[in-house]
Amino acid sequence: MTVELIQDIAEMQKITIGARIRGKSVGLVPTMGYLHKGHLSLVRLARREADFLVVSIFVNPTQFVEGEDYESYPRDAERDTRLLDREGVDAVFSPAVEEMYPRDYSTYVEVEDLTSVLCGRSRPGHFRGVTTVVAKLFNAVRPHFAVFGEKDFQQAIVIRRMVRDLNMGVRIVLGPIVRDEDGLALSSRNTYLTGAEREEARVIYRSLLEARRMVREGNTDAGEVTSAVRDMINAKRAGAVEYVKAVHPETLTELSVIDREAVIAVAARFGRARLIDNIRVGERS
Amino acid sequence: MTVELIQDIAEMQKITIGARIRGKSVGLVPTMGYLHKGHLSLVRLARREADFLVVSIFVNPTQFVEGEDYESYPRDAERDTRLLDREGVDAVFSPAVEEMYPRDYSTYVEVEDLTSVLCGRSRPGHFRGVTTVVAKLFNAVRPHFAVFGEKDFQQAIVIRRMVRDLNMGVRIVLGPIVRDEDGLALSSRNTYLTGAEREEARVIYRSLLEARRMVREGNTDAGEVTSAVRDMINAKRAGAVEYVKAVHPETLTELSVIDREAVIAVAARFGRARLIDNIRVGERS
Repeated sequence: MTVELIQDIAEMQKITIGARIRGKSVGLVPTMGYLHKGHLSLVRLARREADFLVVSIFVNPTQFVEGEDYESYPRDAERDTRLLDREGVDAVFSPAVEEMYPRDYSTYVEVEDLTSVLCGRSRPGHFRGVTTVVAKLFNAVRPHFAVFGEKDFQQAIVIRRMVRDLNMGVRIVLGPIVRDEDGLALSSRNTYLTGAEREEARVIYRSLLEARRMVREGNTDAGEVTSAVRDMINAKRAGAVEYVKAVHPETLTELSVIDREAVIAVAARFGRARLIDNIRVGERS
Repeated sequence: MTVELIQDIAEMQKITIGARIRGKSVGLVPTMGYLHKGHLSLVRLARREADFLVVSIFVNPTQFVEGEDYESYPRDAERDTRLLDREGVDAVFSPAVEEMYPRDYSTYVEVEDLTSVLCGRSRPGHFRGVTTVVAKLFNAVRPHFAVFGEKDFQQAIVIRRMVRDLNMGVRIVLGPIVRDEDGLALSSRNTYLTGAEREEARVIYRSLLEARRMVREGNTDAGEVTSAVRDMINAKRAGAVEYVKAVHPETLTELSVIDREAVIAVAARFGRARLIDNIRVGERS
């Protein structure tokens, strides 16, 4: 293997600050590991642009809310490293939890407004954990750009706001959602699904396509469109919708009329797995 | 004048990132302007170490608490610039409020624990404003080191913690308190004092010297030592102590026994002015 494995923050900074000074463009793809084709598509996107490409693997405890799956979140560092080596990644940054959060750790970065809706409602503190760890990763790697997946749509919007507000000078690039052949958005948490739940979870993407069809055919009533999504998912034995909303693509404001570009965002449980997905509708969709 | 005046964040970043790439060490002295000899001593300290020295002047609205003196805080941009030019500063960074906080601004950096005591008790939100603006200034200027004054002792501790926790890679240098001939710590807010109040405010430093004397002579009872300070200040007609505490120099934990190095920190009002000061006592003081 030629990929460099780095666990120390100071060492990581030294390497990429050196690369910057030599005029190289530094790219970062932050992940929680257990890589799937969705992650790898982001890595390929970043590889095309970066002279020096870092992928971070860190299961970040502060973004898991009380009672969530931090302990059981799937991990496979060996396989992840092998995959990233094969993609020609220059360095894998995988700090220990104690390296990232020493005993008397006490600093948090918080984006207000954008984080009180959608996933922020049911996962209080989740986005504070995300923005805090991303701020730390950005300071450790000092990338020119970082790539995030559009599946975690709200996360991407929140991070873009943080970067703008704090003048971080990191360009945020979004990579499209990668789906299995049957349409299910790839997620490390899909591993929680039983065979039957996996089968039923296909409805999520089908319901979003139905929403897009309704809007295309002229239905601008967000209530009707989101109800259709909700009903299709809840009709499944294992399916339980947490939210379905039509929102503004940048402000995340909930729309009651879909007379412009919008995002339909959904979160639903299927058994143990909490799955999210989204689709663009209206105007240019 | 040869000093460069910069108001635009992107321009500031371009200049200091360029300096970094050319191998120059970049120093920053953040101020709210209305410069006095205390500021200038920090500038001189920084000038000795920096190849490229930036002084920021920004009266930061987010660190003023409701009802405080944001509007009336003294300002004199012209005089400040002239003084800094004379000190050989390379660039003065003085962004407009709208440049720093655009309309839908929503990101805050917060250090917990350290900010609930001392000034944090009576100025809720103050340190959140400080850490947020300092994070922004650090990202705008990208300094190798930044200099802060020891008068704002808690502020320096809080900023050091933020830098460590978020891996900002900025070295925090502290400059000693500069005092007027009669002992009063220099502060832009001293301008609020009437002649009589100014005369009485000398007691602050005298009371801290008395505290140090008590500790040197073997009194380890923090209650007795801080009471002496409190009584001396409150005995003045205009004096009203807000707090006097003996605290650990790094954790800011309140000490009841001064059997090690400690800081005696005080905040007191004299008329319109809220003044702070502090002194090291015990062990190496």
